[in-house]
Amino acid sequence: MHTMNSLEYHKQLKGKIEIISRAKIETREDLSLAYTPGVAEACKAIVENKNLVYDLTRKNNLVAVVTDGSAVLGLGNIGPEAGLPVMEGKCALFKEFADVDAFPIALKTQNVDEIVRTVELISPIFGGINLEDISAPRCFEVERRLADILDIPVFHDDQHGTAIVVLAGIKNALKVVSKNLSDIRVAINGVGAAGTAVANLLLLAGVKDIFLVDSKGLIFEGRENLDVEKQKLAVLTNKEKRNGGLKEAVSGADVFVGVSKPGLLTSEMIKTMNVNAIVFAMANPVPEIMPDEAKAAGAAVVATGRSDFPNQVNNVLVFPGIFRGLLDARIRRITMQMKLAAADALAGLVGEPTAEKILPSPLDKNVSKTIAEAIRIASLRGEMK
Amino acid sequence: MHTMNSLEYHKQLKGKIEIISRAKIETREDLSLAYTPGVAEACKAIVENKNLVYDLTRKNNLVAVVTDGSAVLGLGNIGPEAGLPVMEGKCALFKEFADVDAFPIALKTQNVDEIVRTVELISPIFGGINLEDISAPRCFEVERRLADILDIPVFHDDQHGTAIVVLAGIKNALKVVSKNLSDIRVAINGVGAAGTAVANLLLLAGVKDIFLVDSKGLIFEGRENLDVEKQKLAVLTNKEKRNGGLKEAVSGADVFVGVSKPGLLTSEMIKTMNVNAIVFAMANPVPEIMPDEAKAAGAAVVATGRSDFPNQVNNVLVFPGIFRGLLDARIRRITMQMKLAAADALAGLVGEPTAEKILPSPLDKNVSKTIAEAIRIASLRGEMK
Repeated sequence: MHTMNSLEYHKQLKGKIEIISRAKIETREDLSLAYTPGVAEACKAIVENKNLVYDLTRKNNLVAVVTDGSAVLGLGNIGPEAGLPVMEGKCALFKEFADVDAFPIALKTQNVDEIVRTVELISPIFGGINLEDISAPRCFEVERRLADILDIPVFHDDQHGTAIVVLAGIKNALKVVSKNLSDIRVAINGVGAAGTAVANLLLLAGVKDIFLVDSKGLIFEGRENLDVEKQKLAVLTNKEKRNGGLKEAVSGADVFVGVSKPGLLTSEMIKTMNVNAIVFAMANPVPEIMPDEAKAAGAAVVATGRSDFPNQVNNVLVFPGIFRGLLDARIRRITMQMKLAAADALAGLVGEPTAEKILPSPLDKNVSKTIAEAIRIASLRGEMK
Repeated sequence: MHTMNSLEYHKQLKGKIEIISRAKIETREDLSLAYTPGVAEACKAIVENKNLVYDLTRKNNLVAVVTDGSAVLGLGNIGPEAGLPVMEGKCALFKEFADVDAFPIALKTQNVDEIVRTVELISPIFGGINLEDISAPRCFEVERRLADILDIPVFHDDQHGTAIVVLAGIKNALKVVSKNLSDIRVAINGVGAAGTAVANLLLLAGVKDIFLVDSKGLIFEGRENLDVEKQKLAVLTNKEKRNGGLKEAVSGADVFVGVSKPGLLTSEMIKTMNVNAIVFAMANPVPEIMPDEAKAAGAAVVATGRSDFPNQVNNVLVFPGIFRGLLDARIRRITMQMKLAAADALAGLVGEPTAEKILPSPLDKNVSKTIAEAIRIASLRGEMK
């Protein structure tokens, strides 16, 4: 139903974003204040002090949502034009959930050097860069290089937005089953942008025992087919160098995190997990296992990416507040400490987590304020070091 | 007064543009229509038919205002950040005068290859490109190459917006003094982006006798210091190969067009012009000669770029309507015929021109509709050929 309606909905809207003028132009004086000759004074002020660009233009509230169309939703490499409805949707969410002005930049290249250079060249008007739907492992290099070059924050939402909301969800799920982060074993299926970031953030948060499974099976140090990011993670995970695939990874695990494909997790696998298993089956639109089946197999807490089941893991809980915080505090670089703080803040918004309620509703527009404040405080802590 | 106020005005506004969401997101259904999973249908439709990007995203109404900050107002090469207040002002005017969504792109490069490639790479979301404040002669190459590469219209406003409004103004001024385009001699002072485009459009409109003066003096075929654009114009103008400077160019001219520097035109020079001289002194903020002085020296019609004298020559009379027309008719390339049609339409908006009224008010928001319609009709004529 929705999918039929959505095409018509898009046709009627004729674009999900719109650029309006904050300057009302009715009189000659309006014209000479907003444009020539008055505007020259704003230009000259910025020539003298480049930082004034934040005060005299919209840079203070503007984020670029940048994609190359290489990994859009579950649709894959569909190119920049076809990726635009997703980017505009993201921009609409930025405004609706955190009053951030976001503009879609869909690039007609998938070359890393060109992506990096282009974003650098168009960066003057933006106060932050949200990378979106760029395929791994190129996304890692794009993000790292841009963060090094630019003096505005760069955040790849598919990585870090997902990692933050998953960490928050796992924290609350663990409260439900009375386990500790430092004691659990986590099996992550899918080691692209999201899986890599989830593993890194969980490690930083104190998880000690992680198994990662990509399309070639369990990752271990020295395995073939490992890019640089996976090589790093191979050192930090699977210390017993276990071989095999998802079945072997899940056996004895407390938590399953699926950022992979529909239907990969079976009831039989869940039955081999530790008691009070936690299942995050986030493949979209069809999860790795359906919630009812997971529960029947013994899972204590189940989360998916879907809105029609409890515990929706949705990045909209994170990215609007992250950028609200980054922009308001004019933070130049987002740190792992800020991501941990955001996850803590998000988890803290659910007073008493239950198996059916480990995360706030994605429609709760107050979430972004809490995350923004957490980012601000974390940045102040960072400065004091 | 204005200039003092404008800085404060900019500080209070915190940006002259804002990006809003056309999609209201209150319910789970809203979320699934505007974003996942529904948005995938819009993506898939564009994969199958790339042209649907116009119907399903804001491409139908979005223009990039692109600069490299190399020739901003009369301020010169002040760079991308300092150029941004002007670009945002332009975007505000686009919205206020023609409901066009315009976004400022200020590039951190002044290399022609990089400018062209960057604009190409970010072009998918845009329905048109307005080049702005890029210095000559680089602006000619940037515009030509982009027009060749892109399937959306490219318009350098400093060139063609100025040329269109000047041609419209001259047409009406000639009515006031009862002269014909084909009979007049025109002296143009300043052969950068604006002067070059004015000369080309006047030639196309039927002016046969033009003298061009740059910083080295009168332009003639074979002169030194001529770039490619000037070499072309040298063939088409100054057929008697007259030598000298502004004084020699103006002598016997019916029309003076100044797109140069304050104070260059003297009363003595005007006295050497033909009877019923027309003076367009458009240097900003101080014209080549002040209107009172020009009139005292015998000029019949005087126009400037200023709002505090009659006959303000302001590009805002042109660019909003040009792009309104280009976007509405989905025109892929703007032609000289469209520019002539726009000038005709603009001139036609003043029913009975007088020495004090050769152009509509820059505040008249109905002008853009007339220009847009002229562009549409001209494009239909073009298709019939």
